Amino acid sequence: MTQPRPDLLTVHVPLDAGRAYDIQIGRGLIDTAGAAVAALGGRRAAIVTDATVGALYAARLRTSLERAGLQAGVVTVAPGEASKSYAGYAEVCDGLLALKVERGDLVVALGGGVVGDLAGFAAATLRRGVRFVQVPTSLLAQVDSSVGGKTGINAPLGKNLIGAFHQPRLVLADTAALDTLSEREMRAGYAEVAKYGLIADPGFFDWCEANWRGIFAGGPEREQAVASCCRAKAAVVTRDEREDGERALLNLGHTFGHALERLTGYDSARLVHGEGVAIGMALAFRFSARLGLCAGQDAGRVANHLALAGLPTRLQAVPGGCGDVEALLDAMTQDKKVRDGALTFILARGIGQSFIAPGVDRVEVAAFLRDELASDRAA
Amino acid sequence: MTQPRPDLLTVHVPLDAGRAYDIQIGRGLIDTAGAAVAALGGRRAAIVTDATVGALYAARLRTSLERAGLQAGVVTVAPGEASKSYAGYAEVCDGLLALKVERGDLVVALGGGVVGDLAGFAAATLRRGVRFVQVPTSLLAQVDSSVGGKTGINAPLGKNLIGAFHQPRLVLADTAALDTLSEREMRAGYAEVAKYGLIADPGFFDWCEANWRGIFAGGPEREQAVASCCRAKAAVVTRDEREDGERALLNLGHTFGHALERLTGYDSARLVHGEGVAIGMALAFRFSARLGLCAGQDAGRVANHLALAGLPTRLQAVPGGCGDVEALLDAMTQDKKVRDGALTFILARGIGQSFIAPGVDRVEVAAFLRDELASDRAA
Repeated sequence: MTQPRPDLLTVHVPLDAGRAYDIQIGRGLIDTAGAAVAALGGRRAAIVTDATVGALYAARLRTSLERAGLQAGVVTVAPGEASKSYAGYAEVCDGLLALKVERGDLVVALGGGVVGDLAGFAAATLRRGVRFVQVPTSLLAQVDSSVGGKTGINAPLGKNLIGAFHQPRLVLADTAALDTLSEREMRAGYAEVAKYGLIADPGFFDWCEANWRGIFAGGPEREQAVASCCRAKAAVVTRDEREDGERALLNLGHTFGHALERLTGYDSARLVHGEGVAIGMALAFRFSARLGLCAGQDAGRVANHLALAGLPTRLQAVPGGCGDVEALLDAMTQDKKVRDGALTFILARGIGQSFIAPGVDRVEVAAFLRDELASDRAA
Repeated sequence: MTQPRPDLLTVHVPLDAGRAYDIQIGRGLIDTAGAAVAALGGRRAAIVTDATVGALYAARLRTSLERAGLQAGVVTVAPGEASKSYAGYAEVCDGLLALKVERGDLVVALGGGVVGDLAGFAAATLRRGVRFVQVPTSLLAQVDSSVGGKTGINAPLGKNLIGAFHQPRLVLADTAALDTLSEREMRAGYAEVAKYGLIADPGFFDWCEANWRGIFAGGPEREQAVASCCRAKAAVVTRDEREDGERALLNLGHTFGHALERLTGYDSARLVHGEGVAIGMALAFRFSARLGLCAGQDAGRVANHLALAGLPTRLQAVPGGCGDVEALLDAMTQDKKVRDGALTFILARGIGQSFIAPGVDRVEVAAFLRDELASDRAA
């Protein structure tokens, strides 16, 4: 398994100051990770994973790392968003210190978005910063959270409010790992795939409409989609690493989505991140249409495609409900995208024509949400 | 109080990428802080302090900030090293979020080294980074921890093992605040003052021997000493911000010192940081003399001066004892200055001639410590 892999797709992220890195995409990368990680230098590679993913892949990854001559160890946290907390952070840091991870060593995040964000933040701050590698095992993590260097945890007052910008040195997206995802997890990740088309690439959204089933089924469309998303994200991140400008476009659907996650107590039985984003993107397009910014048929096309892929698109689809207009607005104003108290949304002039809209009138938002909640149409 | 202050000393820290900042040194800066902080921009300034310092200065600082047009709030933690923990970190972050600190706002650290490190780390990671101002109120913080951007907390496995490099935008060293320090706190800070002479500036060590009483008494020597130390530290930090090289010289006395702090459970009733550093510096010079690197009379002169200023210089001076040789070595090898398992010390060829000595033989260290512990001479 150590011969060259012509079947791999590679996306390069050309950051400056020696921080450029590659994203490798293909089947079986977990079993061949050792050579790629060892090439980065360092004596130890400490795997951070959760119990679910760890049971499937930690031993295989560890074997690959050890065969490449690295001392490997594993820190395992409980699965789920609750680990992305102060307590989970302390647990991972203390675990890495117990493995005697030093400044020249590597942290390897093996898992979905929660593990990547948590392990990345621990790496960013352990001994004031050690290098890390992302081995994302969910579609969401492969197309979004493992690329770009945003790491962090949740605070009681909101999601991702604590963290650091810390770029990985390498991302290994093993697309075979997606075979073990539930249909629901695949769908949730797919919301972020479709997002890249909606933000700035109408041709990719057309492609998604034609090819989404191949992504789910594990055809070559899967690697193509992951590579397309990573290229799109890498381009944005390279131009605006710290989200002073256009990187905020990646938050399409997230102001609504994060509010819904908050109001459902980050309970993944009720709502996972991608589902919140799907509802949020549908809302962002309908809100844009209501404001006369984009055609109503674009908003309809967005909702139809997400629904066809099995994703929710309406507030009423949240199991157990999402609270009233005031609760939604309160949940949105604690979001980190609030600046000087004004609401910032990502709105759209059409599919692939999203833009940052700062200072959106709270009254307009309230009226829109009231009508959405009053609507009879289910998702 | 808003007129120009010709009596202030200013040290400029010329970092790149828009991160250059000034250190202002003088009496009464807490009461005039508002204008300087407001000049940095932002709507809110959230003060982080501890209960002891806060009772003395928080209201005055807050008044000054509010008069300058800033919305100000205060987060207060318990005094002492125990706050520099995961729990203290969560407390400060949640407090800042409750004050609705946004990305354009400022965190103002008002206190000694613990508050500066803790508030700086919270600022480094709150919403992935907000700007912060240091208002150090201890001699230790004014000459050392407030300058250079090292922030962090302690882990159960060791001191300062979690943190970030995050430079302040401004440092306001109000030397009048030192009037309220205990003699013991002044002495502890003075160990770091003398350190700058021992590292690389024999002339400054001569000056310290002649002028140390003026620093304690609050004469103009105090501002001169603080400015000299800040200049020395700024020069090192500018050349080696992330401690890839010479910045490690600032750790003179710290490998021993941190081990002693760890072995006394970070209990400030037994040992404070500066006392550990004083013992550590005396040990580093005696160890250097033993290895034939520096003259025994230099080691004697170092210990004599520290003792004259009331500082401990021997392991036997630690109240309650510091454990045996093995305990000391174990405590040292968990230190973050360990790379690939080898012991790194700062040793000296003479006063003002310190150097980084990687790969020091553990057996040599053990023999030295055994003889030190066996010695009858008390501090």
